[in-house]
Amino acid sequence: MGLSYQEELTLPFELCDVKSDIKLPLLLDYCLMVSGRQSAQLGRSNNNLLVDYKLVWIVTDYEITIHRLPHFQETITIETKALSYNKFFCYRQFYIYDQEGDLLVDILAYFALLNPDTRKVATIPEDLVAPFKTDFVKKLHRVPKMPLLEQSIDRDYYVRYFDIDMNGHVNNSKYLDWMYDVLGCAFLKTHQPLKMTLKYVKEVSPGGQITSSYHLDQLTSYHQIISDGQLNAQAMIEWRAIKPIESETD
Amino acid sequence: MGLSYQEELTLPFELCDVKSDIKLPLLLDYCLMVSGRQSAQLGRSNNNLLVDYKLVWIVTDYEITIHRLPHFQETITIETKALSYNKFFCYRQFYIYDQEGDLLVDILAYFALLNPDTRKVATIPEDLVAPFKTDFVKKLHRVPKMPLLEQSIDRDYYVRYFDIDMNGHVNNSKYLDWMYDVLGCAFLKTHQPLKMTLKYVKEVSPGGQITSSYHLDQLTSYHQIISDGQLNAQAMIEWRAIKPIESETD
Repeated sequence: MGLSYQEELTLPFELCDVKSDIKLPLLLDYCLMVSGRQSAQLGRSNNNLLVDYKLVWIVTDYEITIHRLPHFQETITIETKALSYNKFFCYRQFYIYDQEGDLLVDILAYFALLNPDTRKVATIPEDLVAPFKTDFVKKLHRVPKMPLLEQSIDRDYYVRYFDIDMNGHVNNSKYLDWMYDVLGCAFLKTHQPLKMTLKYVKEVSPGGQITSSYHLDQLTSYHQIISDGQLNAQAMIEWRAIKPIESETD
Repeated sequence: MGLSYQEELTLPFELCDVKSDIKLPLLLDYCLMVSGRQSAQLGRSNNNLLVDYKLVWIVTDYEITIHRLPHFQETITIETKALSYNKFFCYRQFYIYDQEGDLLVDILAYFALLNPDTRKVATIPEDLVAPFKTDFVKKLHRVPKMPLLEQSIDRDYYVRYFDIDMNGHVNNSKYLDWMYDVLGCAFLKTHQPLKMTLKYVKEVSPGGQITSSYHLDQLTSYHQIISDGQLNAQAMIEWRAIKPIESETD
């Protein structure tokens, strides 16, 4: 188990959704900023990585368990540590705690290294990860394979300019945006996510459009993002029903 | 001139666009978080405002001058102070400085108070703004009126679930997203904004779609957002041409 690092955050208006809960895609983004700051503190900033190794980190998978979503004005602690690594992946855990120290959200993220010129995955240099004090493990831990949807409800989305990040491709958090959005407001206002597995398969290029598809089986939704006939991302989300929020927008 | 408050920020990957510049809508969002923290420090948090006064702050106008956009990994200082207020508006300035103390961006924001139940603007209670130590000024400073576009290039956008904020309407930063996006990738990659006037006229409701229209006259773009036949927002942006970035995505 690697070095632990933590930061506090009081949730501002801008990170919260219509239910006053944190927007999950923005929580994932924020977690990446926190681990980025740990890396910088250990002399392994994203900038160093690009200059010294000509590589960038990408996240390939998330496994998320949500006990309760943090809400507006709540102060949370985000703790992160690198767990282990193998030839191609670094496994990193994020824990979100409330003020009483209760665990709210548990996120396991799979990181890989990408050569931004060739768009190929690179093996993980030992000296790059040494400061994190994690163990090398031979076994490749992967999330279970998700089959393609046989029946689905679909919606097309244009890729927008600000969906594109510095790597020149659609930012990871946008996929979850599209997966949520296709479920519709009525469903999202009356359900909370409990568990989520999110898998990035192939980057979405700028321009053009994607199709966000889902199939709902009781309280589990199965998702896929497809563009140009290629699978880009998949997810499985377990939900629980909640009382609808009271609002003029219902 | 009111009490000054400042914070530093080192720009993470997640706030930057394909040109490695800060995404302007996210900079505006971040500035609101900073002024929110000043308000909280002075005992005037958004939460207090809602509980004690049953009101929320909204931004109605921005006037922005951009000398240079902050870029990835740069550490900036965000300084903010309330300038003055009158019956309906609080004027607040944000200054973004680089490490050498040079001014990068200058933002004047007009704040007003909204009753979230009636959606009506409220007069500004003197005791609410007293801790900011600003002056009452009788004059209503307004941005110049912008005429409706006579000819335009248009694009329709669906309002997405995560476009909606806690107030139950489309978040301010999304309007600028739509205004940028309609200009297209080729233009955005080869131009930088210099000056911007952004005016919020009427909130966009959740569901449905909006039309983002623009007219480009030399290096000034004129924008409007319309939904259900009503004008929601307008903007005028002055640009300068830059050398295209080198990227496989061009």
